[in-house]
Amino acid sequence: MDEPTDLRRLRGDRTRRAVLDRAVQEASVRGLDALSFGALAQDVPVNKSGIAGLFGSKERLQLAAVERAAEIYTEHVVVRARAADRGLARLWALVLAWTEYSRSRVFEGGCFFRTVEIEFDMRDGAVHDAVVAAQQAWESYLVHQAQVAVGAGELAPGTDPAQVAFEVNALLNAANDRSLLLRDDAVYERAIQAARSLLAARGADLAALR
Amino acid sequence: MDEPTDLRRLRGDRTRRAVLDRAVQEASVRGLDALSFGALAQDVPVNKSGIAGLFGSKERLQLAAVERAAEIYTEHVVVRARAADRGLARLWALVLAWTEYSRSRVFEGGCFFRTVEIEFDMRDGAVHDAVVAAQQAWESYLVHQAQVAVGAGELAPGTDPAQVAFEVNALLNAANDRSLLLRDDAVYERAIQAARSLLAARGADLAALR
Repeated sequence: MDEPTDLRRLRGDRTRRAVLDRAVQEASVRGLDALSFGALAQDVPVNKSGIAGLFGSKERLQLAAVERAAEIYTEHVVVRARAADRGLARLWALVLAWTEYSRSRVFEGGCFFRTVEIEFDMRDGAVHDAVVAAQQAWESYLVHQAQVAVGAGELAPGTDPAQVAFEVNALLNAANDRSLLLRDDAVYERAIQAARSLLAARGADLAALR
Repeated sequence: MDEPTDLRRLRGDRTRRAVLDRAVQEASVRGLDALSFGALAQDVPVNKSGIAGLFGSKERLQLAAVERAAEIYTEHVVVRARAADRGLARLWALVLAWTEYSRSRVFEGGCFFRTVEIEFDMRDGAVHDAVVAAQQAWESYLVHQAQVAVGAGELAPGTDPAQVAFEVNALLNAANDRSLLLRDDAVYERAIQAARSLLAARGADLAALR
């Protein structure tokens, strides 16, 4: 006779997901501080006290939003790039998947993490730590692929994988930020071209960077 | 008999400057939306209604803060780099002055414009437009110096000055953002090294990039 409980849980999970899917969109535009139970209730089929009951506190809502945003990011960027072989091919696939993720506005306000990184960079606490952890997981993934590429001889020996990751990430972020601020999508081509040059300057085969 | 009026104006100017100098610091950390007459009054020798009288509206305070921040930016970055010759030398001096400006936290929250660009990128209105104008003035200045460098043969013929400006700016911004979020100053060296490489790859004399 567990069915009613399971059904209730399922409904609760769906509701939670609906609130979070709205919250990450809102936070990508206005930041995590702008989230409120009351404002979210206007856009989802749950009232304010229902949302409060699901999350308990604003900080727990913010943390859940960071977690949900990381899932969406992984799905649109990391999972897509997994079709390419590890190393240089995957590094390049990540560049293309990332620019597509930003350009297509998976999040209404461009990359969710760009907004909340700048919002929380000077603060301490659980939300800052969650944002840092997400950022470091992403950068580590880039470093790892660059490392594999160096190991496989796809990038020149002596290439510093952390430097490659820093530069690639800088270009992707700049394209996102610039495209939003100046409302000009040409920056994505600039970022792709620059990433291609920096990898080619480190010995990458241009044929692999298409 | 104009002296009393002049003195009053001088005092008004000084007060206005004191409020704005506090406002740009605060906005560099929390954004321009977080500014309020009441909160500012706690940190300057003017009360809330005095500040309201000086600026009239929150939007006018925000616009005045953007203007004051641009003055401070110009003083710390552009004016310092003017000691170097136009073209490649000045471009390089701008890279060094910018990293120093960010690293030394001229603004408590790192580059003022990084915070407010992300804050206002999705909005319309006078503050968004002022932020865009400041950003474009800066980027045009970089483009112009790259253009002079190409014209003088300091960068390879066919080099796209706008592409150089995009890449240099991406690296500087990434260093600022990363240094704040991860509390790690090593990224400034990464940015300088990357800027050096991208200019050298376009034919710059390494001796000019020190």
